[in-house]
Amino acid sequence: MKIPVVRNILEVNDRVAEQNRALFDQNRVFVCNLMSSPGAGKTSLLERTIDHLKDRLRIGVIEGDITSNLDAERIVQKGVQAVQINTDGACHLDANMVWEAVSNIDLTSLDLMVIENVGNLVCPAEFKVGEDVKVMILSVTEGDDKPLKYPLMFQLSQALIINKIDLLPYVDCDMQKVRETALKLNPGITIFEVSCRTGEGLGTWYDWLQGKIESRA
Amino acid sequence: MKIPVVRNILEVNDRVAEQNRALFDQNRVFVCNLMSSPGAGKTSLLERTIDHLKDRLRIGVIEGDITSNLDAERIVQKGVQAVQINTDGACHLDANMVWEAVSNIDLTSLDLMVIENVGNLVCPAEFKVGEDVKVMILSVTEGDDKPLKYPLMFQLSQALIINKIDLLPYVDCDMQKVRETALKLNPGITIFEVSCRTGEGLGTWYDWLQGKIESRA
Repeated sequence: MKIPVVRNILEVNDRVAEQNRALFDQNRVFVCNLMSSPGAGKTSLLERTIDHLKDRLRIGVIEGDITSNLDAERIVQKGVQAVQINTDGACHLDANMVWEAVSNIDLTSLDLMVIENVGNLVCPAEFKVGEDVKVMILSVTEGDDKPLKYPLMFQLSQALIINKIDLLPYVDCDMQKVRETALKLNPGITIFEVSCRTGEGLGTWYDWLQGKIESRA
Repeated sequence: MKIPVVRNILEVNDRVAEQNRALFDQNRVFVCNLMSSPGAGKTSLLERTIDHLKDRLRIGVIEGDITSNLDAERIVQKGVQAVQINTDGACHLDANMVWEAVSNIDLTSLDLMVIENVGNLVCPAEFKVGEDVKVMILSVTEGDDKPLKYPLMFQLSQALIINKIDLLPYVDCDMQKVRETALKLNPGITIFEVSCRTGEGLGTWYDWLQGKIESRA
């Protein structure tokens, strides 16, 4: 009984994701679906990225949270458009939620939209929202066994940002093991090692993102 | 369309959870459903807890993971019974998975069974598995805003273990804020501040768990 229902939900989701995709293309907006476990640093990465790119790119943000608008409040302070989606219990964003949120955003005034997904290393990976790229964050505090234990997000993401490298001296996380396992799951994934706290390593991430936006069709 | 399907799944789940509950009661096994984000320290807490209690209590473990048996391998080395559930993509354990796993365990030989759920701060809270207590872990590295952003697990857990307090000097996490927010969501929750790395604070957790097991009807 269960599998057909899930498949059906995913098929409907994919159709709506294509609608979103068409709308983003019409308006030439590059869309990044940002995913991670709770507290791995999605909002902190976004704050840093906005600070660095906002003079060159017009940026908008969709914040996905089960409840509260704490993250959207942080983002609005950066002077960019932000819309909050409250999923009311749901553990991921789906294409329909993004479709509804987009009606509150002036797409013609944007170059880049970042969709910050619900903090969850599992479910968000299954649901396309019409993005150009999926980007995931892993915090070194989560441990080096995470690619093997939660493979789908690593398999589907174009970029893996390993965050909180300033904490490496205090935790057991073998970076080489993370890299090797992630690359075995997804040989095409681009890996960044950063600290959103100190700023270390973020330059290559900004360049990669800007390059992607500039090289789109 | 979606809400009735979800409700139906939860109702079926609750009935199977009651079956599990009856089976655990028959065998006088105390069951702890252990939940957290990925990498917050469920397996580490379990290793420490087994080391401390295994001479006094007969302990069994059900390991829930999407894929792999890395955690079960760690637990078996502690000399206790362990069964691995691979959810094959599902983001939480449900009562039926636990029902099937239990058929591989000799319940008559156990006092305590710990069910380590899939690493996910959202979905596992919704699914009863027949447990006596829900226990959750929050790592200080996840940040002090997590109770407000992911309230359900905090509302439903009997105990909140705040782990990795050895990292407090290096992260922004206001412990008072975590405590206050968690207690506002759930005034009856018991809070422990621990480091599974150093062992700090774990004594009160062991005592609490042992007290719960001894005082059951």
